[in-house]
Amino acid sequence: MNAEKIPDIIITRLPVYLRALQRMADKGIKTTSSQELGERVGISAAQIRKDISQFGEFGKQGTGYTIDYLLDKLREILKVDRMWDVIIIGAGDMGHALARYQGFSNRGFNVVMIFDNDQEKIGQKIGEFTVESIDNLVEKIKAADIKIAMLTIPATAAQGIADKLVEAGVKAILNYAPISLSVPKGVRVQHIDPATHLQRMTYYL
Amino acid sequence: MNAEKIPDIIITRLPVYLRALQRMADKGIKTTSSQELGERVGISAAQIRKDISQFGEFGKQGTGYTIDYLLDKLREILKVDRMWDVIIIGAGDMGHALARYQGFSNRGFNVVMIFDNDQEKIGQKIGEFTVESIDNLVEKIKAADIKIAMLTIPATAAQGIADKLVEAGVKAILNYAPISLSVPKGVRVQHIDPATHLQRMTYYL
Repeated sequence: MNAEKIPDIIITRLPVYLRALQRMADKGIKTTSSQELGERVGISAAQIRKDISQFGEFGKQGTGYTIDYLLDKLREILKVDRMWDVIIIGAGDMGHALARYQGFSNRGFNVVMIFDNDQEKIGQKIGEFTVESIDNLVEKIKAADIKIAMLTIPATAAQGIADKLVEAGVKAILNYAPISLSVPKGVRVQHIDPATHLQRMTYYL
Repeated sequence: MNAEKIPDIIITRLPVYLRALQRMADKGIKTTSSQELGERVGISAAQIRKDISQFGEFGKQGTGYTIDYLLDKLREILKVDRMWDVIIIGAGDMGHALARYQGFSNRGFNVVMIFDNDQEKIGQKIGEFTVESIDNLVEKIKAADIKIAMLTIPATAAQGIADKLVEAGVKAILNYAPISLSVPKGVRVQHIDPATHLQRMTYYL
């Protein structure tokens, strides 16, 4: 299958495999099987084999997958074998949490700026960052050639800021605002929404 | 298919359909098709029809789905046609963000308590909540018969607290700590991890 035609749903699962494999590697585990990986991520072994085989033959019948090799391949496929600069919009609770989050740098991401529109917050320090004025958003993004933004602002302001991000050249938005964003083709949005995750568990209660 | 045997992967998608349908309903839209819903959530129409048909015949050939009816059915299936009390562990940035999040009450969840182990934080007000001591965690959970917890504490402390949650009778944990939790069968964990979401977009950059 041509890489350009890989279904989105498969791409959605690859970071989950990547995370599980990374944790196995961290524990010193060298090889795994689709069965073992499947148990860790809650996806069938057959689905995992099918997903991974879209990109080539990375496993061997009987011996399974070499974890380091599969990690390298998945990182290459997902383009996180490099570092991506990321900005945060919104210096509220969630913006603070993301600015201090320790899980980005070893996964391919580097937070570089945080913006807010509140005069009280602009100029404040959050860890190593100084909150910048949202008035400078487009110009700063263009100057630094930023492609990825995390949006942690109220729903009422989110679409307006998303439009500015798109204008500035951002191609990927992680949206924490409880609203659907309209973006042109070629721009991706992922929505993080704790209620959706909770609803994935209530079924079983 | 017997409801007990619905694959987890289907259950994972239902809250995504629910959210998209709720937004359509909020805009006054009365009916939809698997094609239209699919475009909104990035899942094929065939997959959506197959997923929903696991639970019964909720749509009609030619006219599609009545949104209010499908919303009711999905809420019933996911058991969010009632309210679930939820607790937050950790009164840091993320705990604050969750305590103030406006998107729970209309999705079936009601935050009722927030705990921390920091003497400086215990007794502090966060919105309508007073931060409680984690020393009282098990007893408070049992007394209030809480089944769902959101864990926003450092990775090093997460497994120990997860063990206490399980001991107290919690059956569903939303984990923000960058660590895999070990829990017994019958307890579900969902992991919220912004890096995984970002990696779902870098493929397309």
